[in-house]
Amino acid sequence: MSQGETAAVVKADAYGLGADRVAPALAEAGARTFFVAAAEEGVEVRAVLGPGPNICVFSGHMPGDTDLIRDAQLTPMINSIDQMLMHVEALPGHAFGIQLDSGMNRLGMEEAEWSALRDIALAQNPFLVMSHLACADDPDHPMNSYQLNTFRAMTDGIDAPRSLSATGGILLGADYHFDMTRPGVGIYGGMPFVDARPVVRLELPVIQTRDVLPGETVGYSNTWKAETPTRVATLASGYADGIIRAMGDGAYLWAGETRCKVLGRISMDMTAVDVTHVSGAPDSLELLGQHQSVDTAADWAGTIGYEILTSLGHRYDRVYLNA
Amino acid sequence: MSQGETAAVVKADAYGLGADRVAPALAEAGARTFFVAAAEEGVEVRAVLGPGPNICVFSGHMPGDTDLIRDAQLTPMINSIDQMLMHVEALPGHAFGIQLDSGMNRLGMEEAEWSALRDIALAQNPFLVMSHLACADDPDHPMNSYQLNTFRAMTDGIDAPRSLSATGGILLGADYHFDMTRPGVGIYGGMPFVDARPVVRLELPVIQTRDVLPGETVGYSNTWKAETPTRVATLASGYADGIIRAMGDGAYLWAGETRCKVLGRISMDMTAVDVTHVSGAPDSLELLGQHQSVDTAADWAGTIGYEILTSLGHRYDRVYLNA
Repeated sequence: MSQGETAAVVKADAYGLGADRVAPALAEAGARTFFVAAAEEGVEVRAVLGPGPNICVFSGHMPGDTDLIRDAQLTPMINSIDQMLMHVEALPGHAFGIQLDSGMNRLGMEEAEWSALRDIALAQNPFLVMSHLACADDPDHPMNSYQLNTFRAMTDGIDAPRSLSATGGILLGADYHFDMTRPGVGIYGGMPFVDARPVVRLELPVIQTRDVLPGETVGYSNTWKAETPTRVATLASGYADGIIRAMGDGAYLWAGETRCKVLGRISMDMTAVDVTHVSGAPDSLELLGQHQSVDTAADWAGTIGYEILTSLGHRYDRVYLNA
Repeated sequence: MSQGETAAVVKADAYGLGADRVAPALAEAGARTFFVAAAEEGVEVRAVLGPGPNICVFSGHMPGDTDLIRDAQLTPMINSIDQMLMHVEALPGHAFGIQLDSGMNRLGMEEAEWSALRDIALAQNPFLVMSHLACADDPDHPMNSYQLNTFRAMTDGIDAPRSLSATGGILLGADYHFDMTRPGVGIYGGMPFVDARPVVRLELPVIQTRDVLPGETVGYSNTWKAETPTRVATLASGYADGIIRAMGDGAYLWAGETRCKVLGRISMDMTAVDVTHVSGAPDSLELLGQHQSVDTAADWAGTIGYEILTSLGHRYDRVYLNA
C-alpha cells in the first residue's frame, strides 16, 4: 500500500484559530504542504513558515495575485482556462496545480475545459491535480462515489499527484485518498471526525453578578423573565466575539461541573447566564472545552462547528499550549 | 432647551468597521467622548485618538484592567461596589463614571447597591452617571417609560451629568436625552434609525463562472439542484468572512441592477450565485450597498443588522472614503 502525503488546510486563519501559531505547529508535526483560500493568506503563512513548505491557494491565480504568488512562492490551484492563461503569461515556469470540478460546481475546471487544456497543462508538470467532495460528511450519499468515479475518469493515467479528499473524504476509506489528503476541520477538533479531540477551550470572564426577583426581566427586549429568584452573571463576551446571536437562550456554559443556561438575548459584548446553582462567585464560565464541543455550540446556532471556529472573535486573550 | 453632548460608541472595533479609522473620523466630526466595551479596546482607541478625548469603558474596572485604565487614561463606568472598591484602591483620584441598572439586569448597580454607595461616589465627582435601555427599539414598549422613571428616581437631583440613551433611546424623544447620548448603530447605518444612510458597501470578487445543466447540483450537500440551464458564479467570500451561513439560499447579491440569488450552502470561503441573467462576466457582486442594507441581510440570517456589521471579516480589502 502506497503512502500518501497528508497536507494541512490553514485557510480562514486556520479555521479561526490563528494561522500564525497553527501553521508552524503543523509544520513541526511534519506537514510539508499547506492550503489557503486566497493568495493574501498564503503570503501570511509564508511569512511564518519561511521558505520550503508548499503553500497552495484554492482560489487559484486571480487578477491582482501575480506579485503575491511570485514573491511568496505560492502554488495556485488553477480553476479555469482563464486562470491558466493568466498564470503562464504572468509567471511562466512558476509552480501550479489544477483544480477540477467533479460535480460540486463550486471551483475547478469542467470536463470540457479540462479536455481542452489537459495535455498542455500536464506537460508543465503540475504540482497536484485535485478536486473536492460535496457530500463527504454523509458516507452513504451517492454523490461520493459519483464524484470519485468522475475524478478517476478525468485523471486516471496521469503522472501528476492527485488529491480528492478533505476530512470527510479521508474517512470514506483508502479509495478516496490518492496521493495527498487535505484535512481541515479534522485537525481542529470538529465533526465529521468523531474521534477528533477538542483543540479550543473558551472561557468567558464575568463582569458582575446580580440577584433577580420573580417578574424581573433580563437583556434586550425583555425576552427572559424570572419565575423564581435567580442569580445572573453578565459575561464580557457577546456576538461580536462569535457567541453567535442565534444561539440565543438555547445555549449553556459551565462553571466547573455546573451547567448554566444563557438567559435572554445575547448582546454584542455581553451574555447573561443563570449561575443560581453555582457555589461562590465564578470569575469565568466555559463555553467550549471538555464539557461541550464546537459541534454542540453549532447545534444551538443552527450551523456547523466550522462556523463556530471561524467566528471566534479577536478580543479574546488567546493562549496557545504546546502539546 | 439645554444642549446635550453626543458621544460615539466605538466598541467591537466600531461595530466591525475599524475603530482605528472610524474613531478619528468621528473625532474630526466633533465627538469628544467615546465608549468601548473593554479596557483593551480603550487602549487601542487612545492610541489612534491621542490625549484629550474621553474614552469610557462599559465593563468598568475589571480585574487586570488597572494598568490599562491608568496608562491610557480611560474612564471606567463602575458597575458594582466591588468595582468601585477596586477602582478607588488601585487608582485613587482617577476619573470614573457610574453605571446603574434601571431594569435590564445586564450591567450596572442595583438600587440597593446605589443607595449604599451614592453619597460616597457622588462626592468624588463622577464623569457620568448612566444606564441603558432594554427595549428602546420598540417605542411603544412599556419598559421604556419604566426604565426612564427608574433612572430618574435613582438620579434626580444629582450634580453629575447623566446619560440613558443609545440610538433607540435618542429616537424616543427629549425626555430620554439627559446630558449625554451614546449613539452606536445609528452612526453605522442600521435600524432603528430608519433615516440612517448606509455606511458600508460590500463587494465580493468572482473567482470563476460556469454553466450548470438541469439536474446538476451546486455546493455542499447538494442542497440546490438546477431545473433550467443556469450560469453560476463562485464568489471568493463565505461565512469565514461574515456571510453568515444561516443566510443560506435566501440571500441575494447584485450585479449592477440585476438581482442574483445565492445557490445552495454558503461555504467557509466561497458563495455560489446565479448570474444567468447578468450580461457579460461580472468581476464582483454587491452584498451590501445602495440596493440592500445590513438590516436586509440580517433578516436573511434571522438576526439584526448589528451582527452583520460585527461579523464583517478580516480578509476583505477595506477602502475608507472621506465624506
